[in-house]
Amino acid sequence: MELAKQFREHVLKQKAYAYVMNVVGWDSATEAPKGAFQRRAQLTGIISAESFKLRTSKEYQEVVNGLFETIETLDDELQREIKKAKKDLDQILKIPQNEYVEYGQLVGLSQRLWEEAKENDDFEMFKPNLEKLVAFQRKFANYIDKEKHPYNVMLDNFEEGMTMDEYDKFFNALRKDLVPFVKKVLNSGKVLNDAFSGLDYEQENQKEFSEYVVDVLGFNRDGGLLKESVHPFTWNTHPSDVRLTTRYLPDMVFSSIFATIHELGHALYEQQIDEKFNNTLLNGGTSMGVHESQSRFYENVLGRSKEFWATHLDKFKEVFPEQTKNVTLDDFHRAVNKVEASFIRVEADELTYPLHIMVRYEIERILMNGEITVDELPKVWNNKMVEYLGIEPKNNAEGVLQDVHWSAGLFGYFPTYALGTAYAAQFYNTMKKEFNVLEEVRNNNFDKINEWLKNKIHKFGSSKDPKELLLEVTGEEFNPKYYVDYLIEKYTELYL
Amino acid sequence: MELAKQFREHVLKQKAYAYVMNVVGWDSATEAPKGAFQRRAQLTGIISAESFKLRTSKEYQEVVNGLFETIETLDDELQREIKKAKKDLDQILKIPQNEYVEYGQLVGLSQRLWEEAKENDDFEMFKPNLEKLVAFQRKFANYIDKEKHPYNVMLDNFEEGMTMDEYDKFFNALRKDLVPFVKKVLNSGKVLNDAFSGLDYEQENQKEFSEYVVDVLGFNRDGGLLKESVHPFTWNTHPSDVRLTTRYLPDMVFSSIFATIHELGHALYEQQIDEKFNNTLLNGGTSMGVHESQSRFYENVLGRSKEFWATHLDKFKEVFPEQTKNVTLDDFHRAVNKVEASFIRVEADELTYPLHIMVRYEIERILMNGEITVDELPKVWNNKMVEYLGIEPKNNAEGVLQDVHWSAGLFGYFPTYALGTAYAAQFYNTMKKEFNVLEEVRNNNFDKINEWLKNKIHKFGSSKDPKELLLEVTGEEFNPKYYVDYLIEKYTELYL
Repeated sequence: MELAKQFREHVLKQKAYAYVMNVVGWDSATEAPKGAFQRRAQLTGIISAESFKLRTSKEYQEVVNGLFETIETLDDELQREIKKAKKDLDQILKIPQNEYVEYGQLVGLSQRLWEEAKENDDFEMFKPNLEKLVAFQRKFANYIDKEKHPYNVMLDNFEEGMTMDEYDKFFNALRKDLVPFVKKVLNSGKVLNDAFSGLDYEQENQKEFSEYVVDVLGFNRDGGLLKESVHPFTWNTHPSDVRLTTRYLPDMVFSSIFATIHELGHALYEQQIDEKFNNTLLNGGTSMGVHESQSRFYENVLGRSKEFWATHLDKFKEVFPEQTKNVTLDDFHRAVNKVEASFIRVEADELTYPLHIMVRYEIERILMNGEITVDELPKVWNNKMVEYLGIEPKNNAEGVLQDVHWSAGLFGYFPTYALGTAYAAQFYNTMKKEFNVLEEVRNNNFDKINEWLKNKIHKFGSSKDPKELLLEVTGEEFNPKYYVDYLIEKYTELYL
Repeated sequence: MELAKQFREHVLKQKAYAYVMNVVGWDSATEAPKGAFQRRAQLTGIISAESFKLRTSKEYQEVVNGLFETIETLDDELQREIKKAKKDLDQILKIPQNEYVEYGQLVGLSQRLWEEAKENDDFEMFKPNLEKLVAFQRKFANYIDKEKHPYNVMLDNFEEGMTMDEYDKFFNALRKDLVPFVKKVLNSGKVLNDAFSGLDYEQENQKEFSEYVVDVLGFNRDGGLLKESVHPFTWNTHPSDVRLTTRYLPDMVFSSIFATIHELGHALYEQQIDEKFNNTLLNGGTSMGVHESQSRFYENVLGRSKEFWATHLDKFKEVFPEQTKNVTLDDFHRAVNKVEASFIRVEADELTYPLHIMVRYEIERILMNGEITVDELPKVWNNKMVEYLGIEPKNNAEGVLQDVHWSAGLFGYFPTYALGTAYAAQFYNTMKKEFNVLEEVRNNNFDKINEWLKNKIHKFGSSKDPKELLLEVTGEEFNPKYYVDYLIEKYTELYL
C-alpha cells in the first residue's frame, strides 16, 4: 500500500531530526561548555524549524489524512500510529502558527525569569509571565477542543484519557485516608538513628556506589551509560541507547542513590521495549504516568526495601567505612524511609510526596477553572501546605516558586507523578500474587522482576495506552486503594 | 544585495546541519554506547542526505554562480568565501552522484576491513579494497581537474596550493640533511636515565595532570572541555565551543601529557579565531598544515622544552611521588625528547617523525603516478623504513597497515603533518626575534605567546590561505631550512 509506505518514510525522517536534536540536548544537559549555548540556540532553531516544516507539511497531512479515512483496513499497530499522528497533527494545526511562535518565545523568556524570581524570592517578578502562560494554555486548550474543559485537555496531553473526574476520585481517596495517616506518622514521636545520613560522602565514592547499583539492577551497559548532570534525568533514542544521569551531593548521599535507582527504573523501561517499534510512533514508554510507575517502583518498592539493603548494605559500608560505623540494617532501612513534613517536593519522602502533588493538582484545577487568579497563588499554596502537611512555607522560593514546570507552560503534568506512583502499587499488587518479589530482591536476583515488567509492560512501548495496560496487567481499572494500602501498611510497620 | 543575503541564509542553514552532525560525532567518539551505532548510522544517513541536498541544490548553485560572476564587486572576505563555495560546489558536481555514493559505501566497508586486516596482519585481505580506493581517488582527481596530476589535486585538497614540486623540495631537504643527522643521533650511544617513564602511572592522576596542563597553557574553560577518547582529537563548532580529548594509558604517561598539549595547540587555535567568521565559510583553522603547526608548536617547542619542565616538574612529582623519586630536571627533559628508530608513526619522537611522513609521501607519490601497484606496497614500505630509519618492520601491522588514512580514502593528507611541523619552526623563528619565547615559558606566562599567535595567525580563521599567512607572518615563503636547523640544533645539544 503506497500511502503506508510514504507514511513510514515520513516518520523515519522525523525520527532522524528528533534524533540529532536529542543528542544535542543530551550534550547540552551533561557537558557542553556555557560558551556553546548562544550559538547552539541559533543553529538548533534552524533544525527545529526544518523539523516543524516536515511534521506539518502538506504531503504529510495528505498521507495521514489519507490513511485515516480508511483506518479500519489497517493492522492494529498502524491504526494506533495513524490515530496518534492524526491527533498530533490536528493539535499543531489548530493553533495559529504566529501564536505558537509567540508562545515559544514566552516560554524561553519565562524559564530564565522564573530562575531569577526563585533566586530572589520574588513572585511579583514572575507573575506577569505566569499570567500570560496560563492565558495561552487556556486558549490553546480551547483551540484543540472547545467542547472540553481546558484543564481536561491539558491532563489528557500528559496522560492519555485522564480527566478531572478521575483525578478527583484519586486525590479524594488520598485526602480522606492518607492525610490523617500522615499526621499520625508525623506525630508518632519515633526517633531514628540516622545522623550518619547527613555526613559528608565523597563524590567519587558515591559514583562508585551508583555504578554498582545500576549493575545490580540489570542495566544493559552495551546499550546505555550513567553520567552526572545538575538535575537527574533519563534520556533515550531507542532501546539500545538509553542513558541516565544522577548527581553527587556531598552531604546528601541518599539523594544520589535514590535518584540513580529512580532513573534506572525509567531506563530499564526504555531498554526493554521491543526494537520493532524503533521506526514507528509507538516507540518509547506509553505515558508519563506509566513511566513514573516504573521509576517509583524501583526507587521505593525495591530500592527502599529492607530486603534490598539486607544484601547491599555491606557494599555501602565497604565504600563508606568511616561514615557507616555502627550503622545497623534496621537503622539504615528506617533512615532511607524517614518521613518528614517538608517544603520541597523533589526532596520529599515516599509518604508525603503525593500530598505535595495534591497541592499542585488542586491549584491547577481551580486556576484553570477561573476560581482563583495568578495573584492569589502564593496564599492558596501556603494554605494548602498547612492543611495537608501542617507547615507553612516562609517564602515563595520554598513555596509556589519551587518548581520549573509552570514556567515551561507545563500545566497538567504534576498529577502524573502521583498517578504513576499509584499505578506502581497496583502493578506491584499483581506481581506479588505471582511470586515473592522481596524474596527475589533479598536474593539479589532482579531477572525475574525485570522479565515480568518486560513481558507485561515494557516490551509494548506505546502500543497500548495506560488504561488498556493497567486493565490487561492487573485485571482491573485504576484503583487508588492499592497505593493507599501499600503506604499505610509500610509506614505503620515503620512508625506506629 | 539580494544574492549576498541569500548566500548568508544558505550558509547558515548548512552550518546548522553541520553543527548537529558534529555533536553526534562528538557523542559517538567519546561516550555513546556501542548499541547506539547501527541506528545512529541509519538516522544520521538521513540527515546527511538532507544536508547534501542543500549543499548541491539548484538554488544554492544559482546564488554562488550569480555572485561568482560579479565577484570583483564584493568585499574581500565575501570574495574569498565565494571562491571557496564555488570550488567546493564544482568539486561535488563534477563527481557523478552514483560514483560518490558507491565510493562512500566503499569507504565505510574499507575502514572496518582495514581494522580486521591490521588485527590479523593480513595485507591481502585489505588489498582489493585499497586498490578500489586508489582507483576511485585517481578517477575523482581526474573529474575535478584533468589538466592536473591526480596527486596534485589530492595534495591541494588537504593543503591549498601545495603541489608535488613543493613537497619534493621539502622532503629533499629532509632527505639530504635530516636522514644522516638522525643516523648520527641514533648511533650516539647516549644512555638516558629514563626508566621512570615506563612505570605505571594511575589514570586518575594522569587526568589530574592533564587538567592542570590545559589550565597552565591558557585554555578557556568557559568555551571548552577536556575529555577522554580512544584516539585523541580536537573538536569544535565555533570559538566558544572547542573540546579536546586525550587518553590515559597506565604505562605511557608521556603519551597522555603530550597528546593533551598537542590537542591543546589545535584547541587554542580554534578558540582564538575571530567570532565574526562564525556564520561564514571562513571559520575554523585555515589548513591542515597550519593547524598542525600550532599543535606541534605547543607540543614540541614549548611542551618538550627544558624551560617548561623547569616550572612544572614539581607539580608532576607532586602528582606522582612514587614514580618520580630521584628524577632530575635533566633526566626528565631528556626522557621526553628520547630519540628512537621505531615502527609506529603516532608513537614516533619529534626527530624521527618527519621520516615516517617521508616514507608515506614518497609511496603515495609513486602509487598515484602508477610507478608501483598496491601489491608492491608492503615491500616498498619496508625498504624505505630500512633506508631512512635503519629498521625493517617484522609484519604489515607495524608496517604498511598501521595507519587508518588510506582505508578512509585519504591520500595526500600525510604530508601536511610534516609540513605543519616545519611551518611551526618557521613561525617560531619569527616569534623568537620579537621576544624571548622560552623565557616566557620558564616564567609560566603563556599570555604573550598566545596573544602573538592570536594576532598573527589564529584570529584570521580561514580568511587567509596558508601561503599568504606564512608570507605575512614570517616575511618569506615556506622554507624548510628553519625546521632542519631547529631539529639539528636541539638534538645536537641533547645527543651529540
